[in-house]
Amino acid sequence: MKTNISGFPEFLPNEQIAFNKVVGRISERFESYGFVPMDTSAVERVETLLSKGNDNEIYGLYRLADENSKKDLGLRFDLTVPLARYVSQNSEDLIFPFRRYHIAPVWRGERPQYGRYRQFYQCDIDIIGDGDLSLEHDAEIISLVIKVLLDLRVPSFHTHINNRKILSGFLTPLVGAQNLVEAVKLVDKIEKISVEQFETEMQKLLIDSQSMQDIRNLFEQKQNLPVESLLINLKSIAGNEEFSQGIKELETLMQTLKRVGIDDRYIKINPRLARGLTYYTGTIFETLFDDIKGMGSISGGGRYDNLTLTLGNSKKYPGVGATIGISRLIPKLIEMELVDIYKKSTADVLITVQDRSLISSYMRLADKFRNLGVKTEIYLQDKPLGAQLTYANKKGIDFVVIANELELLEGKAILRNLMTRQQEIIRTEFLSSEVKDMIFKK
Amino acid sequence: MKTNISGFPEFLPNEQIAFNKVVGRISERFESYGFVPMDTSAVERVETLLSKGNDNEIYGLYRLADENSKKDLGLRFDLTVPLARYVSQNSEDLIFPFRRYHIAPVWRGERPQYGRYRQFYQCDIDIIGDGDLSLEHDAEIISLVIKVLLDLRVPSFHTHINNRKILSGFLTPLVGAQNLVEAVKLVDKIEKISVEQFETEMQKLLIDSQSMQDIRNLFEQKQNLPVESLLINLKSIAGNEEFSQGIKELETLMQTLKRVGIDDRYIKINPRLARGLTYYTGTIFETLFDDIKGMGSISGGGRYDNLTLTLGNSKKYPGVGATIGISRLIPKLIEMELVDIYKKSTADVLITVQDRSLISSYMRLADKFRNLGVKTEIYLQDKPLGAQLTYANKKGIDFVVIANELELLEGKAILRNLMTRQQEIIRTEFLSSEVKDMIFKK
Repeated sequence: MKTNISGFPEFLPNEQIAFNKVVGRISERFESYGFVPMDTSAVERVETLLSKGNDNEIYGLYRLADENSKKDLGLRFDLTVPLARYVSQNSEDLIFPFRRYHIAPVWRGERPQYGRYRQFYQCDIDIIGDGDLSLEHDAEIISLVIKVLLDLRVPSFHTHINNRKILSGFLTPLVGAQNLVEAVKLVDKIEKISVEQFETEMQKLLIDSQSMQDIRNLFEQKQNLPVESLLINLKSIAGNEEFSQGIKELETLMQTLKRVGIDDRYIKINPRLARGLTYYTGTIFETLFDDIKGMGSISGGGRYDNLTLTLGNSKKYPGVGATIGISRLIPKLIEMELVDIYKKSTADVLITVQDRSLISSYMRLADKFRNLGVKTEIYLQDKPLGAQLTYANKKGIDFVVIANELELLEGKAILRNLMTRQQEIIRTEFLSSEVKDMIFKK
Repeated sequence: MKTNISGFPEFLPNEQIAFNKVVGRISERFESYGFVPMDTSAVERVETLLSKGNDNEIYGLYRLADENSKKDLGLRFDLTVPLARYVSQNSEDLIFPFRRYHIAPVWRGERPQYGRYRQFYQCDIDIIGDGDLSLEHDAEIISLVIKVLLDLRVPSFHTHINNRKILSGFLTPLVGAQNLVEAVKLVDKIEKISVEQFETEMQKLLIDSQSMQDIRNLFEQKQNLPVESLLINLKSIAGNEEFSQGIKELETLMQTLKRVGIDDRYIKINPRLARGLTYYTGTIFETLFDDIKGMGSISGGGRYDNLTLTLGNSKKYPGVGATIGISRLIPKLIEMELVDIYKKSTADVLITVQDRSLISSYMRLADKFRNLGVKTEIYLQDKPLGAQLTYANKKGIDFVVIANELELLEGKAILRNLMTRQQEIIRTEFLSSEVKDMIFKK
């Protein structure tokens, strides 16, 4: 990866080919579940952005020619705010449940010295209902995300699952409604701080200082227990009605996932999982590598009661969604050699040119390969054959077609595999499907 | 199309599905010629943008939290400036000729009242050489663009072709080197102004006021002559060495195009074609509808001697490129019903759910359809069958699968075509490829 401006990374051609291939596979999987592509404009009204965002992170726009121009527009910092705005604006034209995916860049106006990305891709899927949305959608989103990660051959990972109702139903009696948000935020930091620090901070929030043992009871549950045993343990913990509702939702979710083939190999209950964002109200989840530390989560998401609340829409739009962190994940997959960055061209075949007076015949031959479904480049510069073969090698184009004037007039050419050095004579008038097989079954 | 903020149009799901399908087809065609995808960051340094752009059109960025933050970044207004910057920055890592395509939004900081797009897509392909680039690349770019338009079933169009050397070789002796840029700009307006206006303006630029007859000789050539006759006429016109060079290039180009199957049905020589941009130095072209007026050009492009000149790179990078105006073309194709906007879901099949206690069985059945390559949505809301069928109808999902508890347990289901109302009983344990055939050969 190259950097033009700090925080705005760019790919070289081979990396871009790999990135697009992965994004294509993800989109295909999303579409196979009936999710429609969304592509909102990069620019939103500042007031829309500020309804959920922190102005520290937002880039505003102004017309370069006029520094005093109206500053009412800015760049999106996530894909959730545009979704909320779009749903609330187009609700009459959408059919609910509305399923969309959105893979696009977002911008964060960080100070450059933070060394963080100022432009990166988000990859979001959400299902939005009008009025209500059944719990099975949570299972569908989680299983879809896991299938995407399996498609991409992401090595050993687990999706950690919890429910906000469990957290708030458990914590509210202990810290009081007024301290709930603070307490959830503290739980969200639990893996990053020491036990002592966690308990010291939690102590400050507790109504009764004696309830630390209860806190330990929940947050020190062994996550490696079988799901069933962990659920039994959770049920034995005291909590209010919301807590029980959360346990019930979690149990149903885990059962559905198991029945559709997503079992303990891929998922676990994690009572410590809190997710930072305030808008989650039910299922929450986060996918982490089992063995790779320090990369943060691969994906995450959850259930929210009302998407458009902050945009002042009176109707309720509950939803469940997930995001896959492709801007970090794909470079990681490349680094782990799970994604190939060998090719610097999209072509499978290079047609070399030996007789420039017949160049249109070579061009027509290239078209024949393309009509067969073979991506084909032609070398049009005036260079000797050796330089043309070097070009193919450097670009990772594995097959070359070689024909001199005589061969071309006789309707013959050589198809050479540059990797194995094997070659065959092919007939050029009608390219047979065997030619295609030679190329794709190397 | 809906508008969120004036100048920032957005699609509804069915339009977005159609738009993406067209963009997918275009990308596929580009890749079949060995063009690699490019995706530079939306943000460039202001100084880079200003090296070629007009500050009236540029959006600058500032951090919302800090109006006095350094204002050195802005949004790209085209894809050529980023290409020039990228090539000059990464030339050591690129293999030339470098072929890339780039389909992405650009931003223009227009005043809203102009009623013009402030965000729209550009769709560019370019081939860049280091040092030199043979003329055959011009033929390849033009034939590729025409094949893309034929792929998209764009109705009767012609690509008008000219050569800047013809224009400047002809005009320089008549108006002097100092008036050349002005004269070319005037020719660029020739179709939009009256003959009188054109001649009055041209008269002001002429060295010898008697040369208006020469001007008429070139610009009033009948374009509907066969290419060969028009070339003979052009050759009979006086001009300097540059002029003759331009005629020679144009002749070679037209011959190559004809030999690869792109003939008078699709191309014509147009001596009035000038193209506004100053950086073209050879072949120039523009595709127009034959019958539809007032939509401007469908595509355009040309040859330039040095891409990175304005960015201060000492090496020469000659190139040839084209842009297809997809933000105007695709909505036009939709309007002409050449692109289908019937589907509001990506799914081909909807699995309906009648027995919610067996929901995971329905979900597994959906997976079986997906494994067969059929895009499949499942209806997970708690609604009666009738409502589920209505949902499929409204979303344009033509097939539904219907099974009650008993049928599901017996491994049977009904596959119904909602368009023809035909239905068949299918076995659900192992979905046969006939099921797939039923769906795709409706």
